[in-house]
Amino acid sequence: PHVPYSPPRYPEETMAMRSQDFLSLMSQRRSVRFISPEPVPREVIDNVIHTAGTAPSGAHTEPWTFVVVSDPETKHQIRLIVEEEEEVNYRKRMGDKWVQDLARLKTNWIKEYLDVAPYLILIFKQTYGILPNGKKKTHYYNEISVCISCGILLAALQNVGLVTVTSTPLNCGPQLRLLLKRPANEKLLMLLPVGYPASDATVPDLKRKPLDNIRVHI
Amino acid sequence: PHVPYSPPRYPEETMAMRSQDFLSLMSQRRSVRFISPEPVPREVIDNVIHTAGTAPSGAHTEPWTFVVVSDPETKHQIRLIVEEEEEVNYRKRMGDKWVQDLARLKTNWIKEYLDVAPYLILIFKQTYGILPNGKKKTHYYNEISVCISCGILLAALQNVGLVTVTSTPLNCGPQLRLLLKRPANEKLLMLLPVGYPASDATVPDLKRKPLDNIRVHI
Ligand SMILES: Cc1cc2nc3c(=O)[nH]c(=O)nc-3n(C[C@H](O)[C@H](O)[C@H](O)COP(=O)(O)O)c2cc1C
Ligand SMILES: Cc1cc2nc3c(=O)[nH]c(=O)nc-3n(C[C@H](O)[C@H](O)[C@H](O)COP(=O)(O)O)c2cc1C
Repeated sequence: PHVPYSPPRYPEETMAMRSQDFLSLMSQRRSVRFISPEPVPREVIDNVIHTAGTAPSGAHTEPWTFVVVSDPETKHQIRLIVEEEEEVNYRKRMGDKWVQDLARLKTNWIKEYLDVAPYLILIFKQTYGILPNGKKKTHYYNEISVCISCGILLAALQNVGLVTVTSTPLNCGPQLRLLLKRPANEKLLMLLPVGYPASDATVPDLKRKPLDNIRVHI
Repeated sequence: PHVPYSPPRYPEETMAMRSQDFLSLMSQRRSVRFISPEPVPREVIDNVIHTAGTAPSGAHTEPWTFVVVSDPETKHQIRLIVEEEEEVNYRKRMGDKWVQDLARLKTNWIKEYLDVAPYLILIFKQTYGILPNGKKKTHYYNEISVCISCGILLAALQNVGLVTVTSTPLNCGPQLRLLLKRPANEKLLMLLPVGYPASDATVPDLKRKPLDNIRVHI
């Protein structure tokens, strides 16, 4: 069944103001690799993930699982797995060119934030679902859907003043899936450490492309 | 060079309230396939796209191009291309199962909104970049990055009371790329018709998974 839909409508000046305010908010977002150990209310993290779950998805399959890790021992196990693989990534798998392209970010395979951040959010895509009759359910466009949901999650974090760094731990998926006891249909897509920024946090001095370089009017 | 980063910080009660408000806002988002022809200020669309451009991207490559089409003739050409391919998709390429999985959404290959919506935003991923010396620049994780950016764009639209339907026009990419004169390194990822909802818009009566089905605490 279909139902009527009439969301709130704003006058043009209000729309312009709201679009400008949201642009200002999101323009301040940066990937932060120095996270404070201070605790963050779990309710806020739950609301942020709930918000990510409002994303659209191919044929409404909602193909996402958000694993929130605050247990120190599990965070440490995650760190050991990620650092071991990342060292191999940087030394061998990525190649000189990729490592060079990352030089200005000064990233490397040491990820202290994996121990320090109060929460690690591991985002899994469900490559298929399981129907009540045990058969596989196709999850159309599951990766695209989960990444869109991650974009909404980043907006929700920014909106409450929390920081993260979007990371895609290369080659760590299978080990982390086993550590977190996730089923075989789930594949790790992203790992986001979440917290307040450390008081002495720094970020690379990057500029973003101006609007005219990313948008074309026809 | 790295620079200090200290974004605004909110008291815990403010964070809880802000996270709740953003959740309420985003919970009202729906994919709308009935869009009003009323004009929408271009400034608002520009701000929304500018906001999408604040997304993170692999090695800060910003691998996105947003083509905003308001020209009626171009919109109509897009409609002809999409409807022709979508008819074949529904009749042959998608298979009975996919078509059946979409039945409750009542979607088909007729896309009136492609003529009617004041704007069509076509989102291209740049599969590689071009360096000043003419060589190819690798765009790490370009699809993931562009989808994250699309999630932020959806949040920005919702924030101003505009609607869209996230669509991935199967097999239309090459023709639309040529129509819009985009270079060979760009591939169409998503097509979003944007506007106010039609006054008699309806949406499928879908429910979303509860938080406990998408989030695990460890
Ligand atoms: C990657 C992706 C592709 C989609 N493709 C289409 C499409 O081609 N046509 C369409 O009508 N809806 C499409 N949708 C919209 C979904 O059907 C919709 O998000 C889902 O039914 C949930 O409804 P909601 O967005 O109102 O919450 C797509 C959504 C996503 C995320
Ligand atoms: C798909 C994706 C993967 C990323 N992977 C990593 C990563 O593994 N490690 C890291 O430190 N940063 C990673 N980043 C963060 C980018 O380096 C960062 O977004 C970019 O440099 C722009 O900086 P900003 O987010 O502060 O705007 C990733 C970002 C995206 C979108």
